[in-house]
Parts: sequence; C-alpha cells; structure tokens
Amino acid sequence: MKFKMTVEYDGTNYVGWQIQKNGMSVQEKLENAMEKLFKTHISTTASGRTDSGVHAKGQVVSFFAETTIPADKIPFALNNLLPIDISAVGCEMVDDDFNARFSAKRKTYVYKVYTSSIPHPMLERYHTRIVQKLDFEEMVKAAKFITGKHDFKCFQAVGSVVNSTVREIYDLTVTKKIDCGTEIFEFSVTGNGFLYNMVRIIAGTLVYVGLHKIKSSDIEKIIKTKDRKHAGKTLGPNGLCLMSVEYDK
Amino acid sequence: MKFKMTVEYDGTNYVGWQIQKNGMSVQEKLENAMEKLFKTHISTTASGRTDSGVHAKGQVVSFFAETTIPADKIPFALNNLLPIDISAVGCEMVDDDFNARFSAKRKTYVYKVYTSSIPHPMLERYHTRIVQKLDFEEMVKAAKFITGKHDFKCFQAVGSVVNSTVREIYDLTVTKKIDCGTEIFEFSVTGNGFLYNMVRIIAGTLVYVGLHKIKSSDIEKIIKTKDRKHAGKTLGPNGLCLMSVEYDK
Repeated sequence: MKFKMTVEYDGTNYVGWQIQKNGMSVQEKLENAMEKLFKTHISTTASGRTDSGVHAKGQVVSFFAETTIPADKIPFALNNLLPIDISAVGCEMVDDDFNARFSAKRKTYVYKVYTSSIPHPMLERYHTRIVQKLDFEEMVKAAKFITGKHDFKCFQAVGSVVNSTVREIYDLTVTKKIDCGTEIFEFSVTGNGFLYNMVRIIAGTLVYVGLHKIKSSDIEKIIKTKDRKHAGKTLGPNGLCLMSVEYDK
Repeated sequence: MKFKMTVEYDGTNYVGWQIQKNGMSVQEKLENAMEKLFKTHISTTASGRTDSGVHAKGQVVSFFAETTIPADKIPFALNNLLPIDISAVGCEMVDDDFNARFSAKRKTYVYKVYTSSIPHPMLERYHTRIVQKLDFEEMVKAAKFITGKHDFKCFQAVGSVVNSTVREIYDLTVTKKIDCGTEIFEFSVTGNGFLYNMVRIIAGTLVYVGLHKIKSSDIEKIIKTKDRKHAGKTLGPNGLCLMSVEYDK
C-alpha cells in the first residue's frame, strides 16, 4: 500500500531532510524508525529536500509499506520510535501513483526574522536576527513585485542547474508583530515550486528592502536581470520553515 | 559600582540558574563571561533560582564591578563572550543597596501548554504537551480562586523548608490561542514571591481542572488543606519562563 505522511521537525540538529554521509538527516531517522516498525527497510520520498537547519511543520512524505496498522495509527506507532525533534503528525492511504515530490502542486514556506541590536535566546532557534530596524511598508510593496509568474533566476543559488528557472509565486505576505517589545516579521510565500535557496534569498531581498539597501520599485528590474548578485543575501536556515504542501484531490 | 542587569536564556541545556557541581549553569556561563570582560571574578545575585530546563526572558541579576564601560554598553560587550542561549538584554547602574533578590517586589512567570495527541517538535522546546483537550472556561474560573493572598503550602514541593508559605498572587491569567491547528494555553502569574515549584504546581493544578480531575469550585478547599497531595502534578520545566521581575523605583 502507498501512504502519504505529514512530518514535522525541528531541523536544528540535522544535516537536512536528505540522507547524507556527513551527518544525521531527518530522512535517516525516519527510515530507521520505519524499519523498526515495519520490520523491513522503507524508502521514503519527500516533497522536496530541506537544507541543514531548516524546519518543517508540514513536510510530506510518500512510501510503500505492507502493514496491517491502520494509516491513521501509523504516526502514533512511529512517534514512539522517533526523537522528540521529529514527529509524524498525520498519515493516510493514497493511490499507488501518488508521489510526494512529483504530485506536489503548491508549497508554503514561512521565513521569520526579528530586529534587535541584542540577541534574544528565546527567539534565536526559529528566527534570524537583523540588527537594524526594517521598513515594513517598503517590504509589503516589494512583496507585490515578487508575486506572480517570473523567471526567478536572480533568486537562485549560484551554481544550481535546472531546466527552467520560471516559477509562479501565488502569494507572498509580509506580516509584523511585537513579542516582548521585539519586532518580528514573517514572510509567508506560496508557490508552485522553488529554486535552490529561493525562499532564503527572497527573505534576504525583502530584508535589504526593509533596510533601504534595495528600493521596492527596483524589484521588477532586479528580477529581469536574472542575476543573483543584484538580489539580497541568502539568510540563514534557522528562520525557515516548510509549512505545508498541497496536492490535487 | 553596583549594576542591575536583565538576562534572557533558553534553559534547555543548563542545570538551572545557580552554580552547581553536577553540570553547567547559566550563572557559571555568565560569571565566566564577566570574568573575561572585567578581568576579575564577579559574583552575581539573581532575583531567584530557576530550575534545570526553565527559561527566562527577564531574569534580573545584580553585581558589583569596577569598570569604565558605560552600563548600557555592558550587554553588547558581554554578549560577544556568551553562548547564543544566554544574552544580557539590558543593564543600568543602581544604588549600592540594590539586591536583585531581596529588593524584588513582584515576579511574573508564564507557563505554556499545548494539547495534542501527537507531539509537535516546533512546540516541544517551550511548551508542555497535554494529550487530552482542556476545558478553558473551567481553568479561567479556577484561576480566580488561586488569585489573592493565601497560605499556598498545597502548591509547594514536598520537603521544602521556608519560614512562611503565605504569598500573594496579584494576577493569574489563562489565555488560549490556536497555532497551526493546535490549542495553546498560557498561564501568566504575577506574585510577590513563589514557593519552590509553585508555578509548575499551579500550572499542573489548572491542567487537572481543565481535564475535570479537579473542580474549579474545589480550589478554595484544596488551598485550605495546605496539603500538596490535593493539588495537580508538577509540570515539566520546559513550559516555564520567568518573564519579568519588578522593583520599587
């Protein structure tokens, strides 16, 4: 039977989703737990890799398994075998042709930053700190120029190789809240797919706009250059979280 | 000169505030950094101990130091010498008779729980998980009975020795919010002082009320028994955070 499982993880202590030789990955921990549960090795396919240190509330994983455990009970059985920073939060049976990666239609990521000249330990784990104040209104304006279908080569890590760098951003929302006197900004972005480091570069570009290093009115021009060097810097992984992946019904 | 410094920390990796032989404490890390900065050993006094694994956004520390560094610059200098899970967030000069512990008038703690049959890694670090649903209205009612000046012996860890177990709770607020489909409850409590484990036992008692193991209308009676065994269980340290300590102007 084919299963679709939703997985949440705090990525701080992992080399990323994908199994690697240089350290412990979320996938390796998950497949180890599955091997104990199903008494045989299970290969999982995720909606996409997340990088070292990146978190997920809604990573989606597909796998084949022969089991008598009802799908909705698999997370409970699996969580007994998983460390506290990885959790299966849902599972259902799906058609055999479902593939968590290739069937994905939309993904939503959130990138969180806080602004403070002083580090706040209680925010550091899930936010990136920006020392200076950020201009909220300018970032909201810039987000509108990023939304839509564009060739996003300027927002792709240098050296990446893909067939096409055209992607569609359905929604990019900038929100601001205050927590214990600290300004927290969340960039929530939904698209049909993302290039390597794209969300972290978009977040870095929005921060540059907020710092007045880039004008919001220059975003269109920057996208048209298709040149990474005109965009903002790639922000760190800890502020990034894969929130959800959507599929056709 | 005497200084009053506010310190924030993620207590996960520490044996608590106070220096201990059996592991690394927040105080030891802080005093090590201060010794490097001031070139001499500095003894600090905190508003109170926090237990192993308990967090603080507003721990207050007093200390004597001879230095030409302006008080408001000390946090910046110190944070370069501190790990990312401890941060000095403010510092000012105070009268020589100021003592972070004995001058404290009010303290506010927040205890956070979430309810879910499934663990959520992104919440685990700063919240305690309760498997069953909690009755919000009943917890709000119970909080009113705990507020006020009472002999709180029933909310003190067994074996503690203090002169008096009378304390005054000025405010105990129960709030509820939803994060990613998960119910999160925050118990915010302000008082003139707290007995050992008192906030964690109050939180555990409110949870028992929310689970209908204790009736909100029985809280007065339970307080009057002065017997620990009638209160709820002591919840874990990770849900607890010392938010602020107030002093007379």
